Amino acid sequence: MHAIVIDKPGGPEVLRWREVPDPRPGSGEVLIDVTASALNRADILQRQGLYNPPPGASPYPGLECSGVVAEVGPDVLGFEPGDQVCALLAGGGYAQRVAVPWQQVMRVPEGVDLVEAAGLPEVACTVWSNVFMTARLRRGETLLVHGGASGIGTLAVQLAKAFGSRVVVTAGSAEKISRCLELGADEGIDYHDGDFSEKVQADVILDIVGGPYLSKNVRALRSGGRLVVIGMQGGSRGELDLGALLAKRASVHGTTLRARPVDEKGAIVRGVVENVWPLVEAGAIRPVIHSRVPMSEAAEAHRILESGEHIGKILLVG
Amino acid sequence: MHAIVIDKPGGPEVLRWREVPDPRPGSGEVLIDVTASALNRADILQRQGLYNPPPGASPYPGLECSGVVAEVGPDVLGFEPGDQVCALLAGGGYAQRVAVPWQQVMRVPEGVDLVEAAGLPEVACTVWSNVFMTARLRRGETLLVHGGASGIGTLAVQLAKAFGSRVVVTAGSAEKISRCLELGADEGIDYHDGDFSEKVQADVILDIVGGPYLSKNVRALRSGGRLVVIGMQGGSRGELDLGALLAKRASVHGTTLRARPVDEKGAIVRGVVENVWPLVEAGAIRPVIHSRVPMSEAAEAHRILESGEHIGKILLVG
Repeated sequence: MHAIVIDKPGGPEVLRWREVPDPRPGSGEVLIDVTASALNRADILQRQGLYNPPPGASPYPGLECSGVVAEVGPDVLGFEPGDQVCALLAGGGYAQRVAVPWQQVMRVPEGVDLVEAAGLPEVACTVWSNVFMTARLRRGETLLVHGGASGIGTLAVQLAKAFGSRVVVTAGSAEKISRCLELGADEGIDYHDGDFSEKVQADVILDIVGGPYLSKNVRALRSGGRLVVIGMQGGSRGELDLGALLAKRASVHGTTLRARPVDEKGAIVRGVVENVWPLVEAGAIRPVIHSRVPMSEAAEAHRILESGEHIGKILLVG
Repeated sequence: MHAIVIDKPGGPEVLRWREVPDPRPGSGEVLIDVTASALNRADILQRQGLYNPPPGASPYPGLECSGVVAEVGPDVLGFEPGDQVCALLAGGGYAQRVAVPWQQVMRVPEGVDLVEAAGLPEVACTVWSNVFMTARLRRGETLLVHGGASGIGTLAVQLAKAFGSRVVVTAGSAEKISRCLELGADEGIDYHDGDFSEKVQADVILDIVGGPYLSKNVRALRSGGRLVVIGMQGGSRGELDLGALLAKRASVHGTTLRARPVDEKGAIVRGVVENVWPLVEAGAIRPVIHSRVPMSEAAEAHRILESGEHIGKILLVG
């Protein structure tokens, strides 16, 4: 098969489409003929040599895909060759085939085409696990989403609105904010216009900026608030005001999806299929796709992601 | 009645035993003839003018008491004059009488004398709410308790052991560590002997030090670990390494008990009566009492607490 190979860390140009050995499905694994994959920020870090795949994972980038089941290994439950699926991967999505534990495989929601389905697993699992499982966002509470126009942001807005919450986003342009409002956000804040913590108080905050936002995020939390940090695009260290945290009885959670054990990923995937897919099928949530790029031109797709101009997901079509 | 009055912020000497107006039980309140109260670190902060009572609370110090029900207001459930009780207070325990919402009142566990019962509500509610409700300590996990010889520490050790956890404590002397081991702790670390985070990895940490321990506490957390900060004896600000927090999928929680709404306190109190009292009655948990001081000599009791030499609770007997 062909896959995108990273011979040495570097810029987008190090991503090369090359012949590599075919993967084989191990025990409990599903082998997928990949129709499409999608980009995540972690792919850039992996390309730069800053985020190695966890032990046992494919060396190729790509944390999600859609496709057709080609083969199932022993002890796989619920999937057969020919099934149209999408999957959460620990790596290897930028390839023509990938083997993945069956617990991380999902049927494609009705009404979503197989290429677009490639952009759903990471955002759905990230938002469901962080906003609903970890932070337990409740109806009527306010969710603040940083990077509202990102793939994760656009799904978080729609999902939180579908569950009856108020949603405020931050984003970096009027166009991005306008798109978030179209998706249902109640309010948008341009982060170039001063300190967001003076403009919003939230029960749950989903953050991708990290260190530089830590103090502001704690200031923006309501009593009982939960800050969930899933990215550190601005840096990893920040000052925590425990006095404020205690006074608010608030909490700060750090999570990642990729390194979790298979059974934890399986629990998240089951939650997504049960809670998110019905809303996708009812039309309450639509995948937001920025562009489709041929997988062999992954370098160009990375350039788009790094430009920061996109809204929603960038797909790699095999 | 008489109560300990703080006319102006200062040292122990500002605590004066004086005639004050009697409290009256409002709707939903129980009026208690106080048999004993007990000291908490927050009382020192209140005496120093650094921790004002929440709105509506008694102006006198004292976050817990035991005694006999003198009178019940309208809409009180489950208590009658003559009942022997102890209670979690928002203030006013250093007095001959105190009015308190019935949800914060508990029967005295069998086998505990009425004076000793004064030292149970704060420690039991603090440990139950933080270690079990917030951090969800599970059987087989390791709990690290800073200040293991404190009132909270001595109860946390016993309760966590009774629920099947491994318990490590830090304390400031061999005598204190020895007492913690007698109470069931598996390991004790003298915090004068270097960095505790090089000696222990824990699933849950109960911390009273705050800022200066923040980095070390995060280092000492296992994957999936929960740090609960309930005091800031060392300072309120510290650097948080979000990279470590994300890699460990860990969380930092700040809480206080005093400022919570009555219904939240009520839920904690019910949890304590259901889960902690049976263990006290079975002898698996014993209140650890350092000394009994007449309530009119509260200043002397504060001096003992501030010396840091005590193990367990200091009681004020009315």
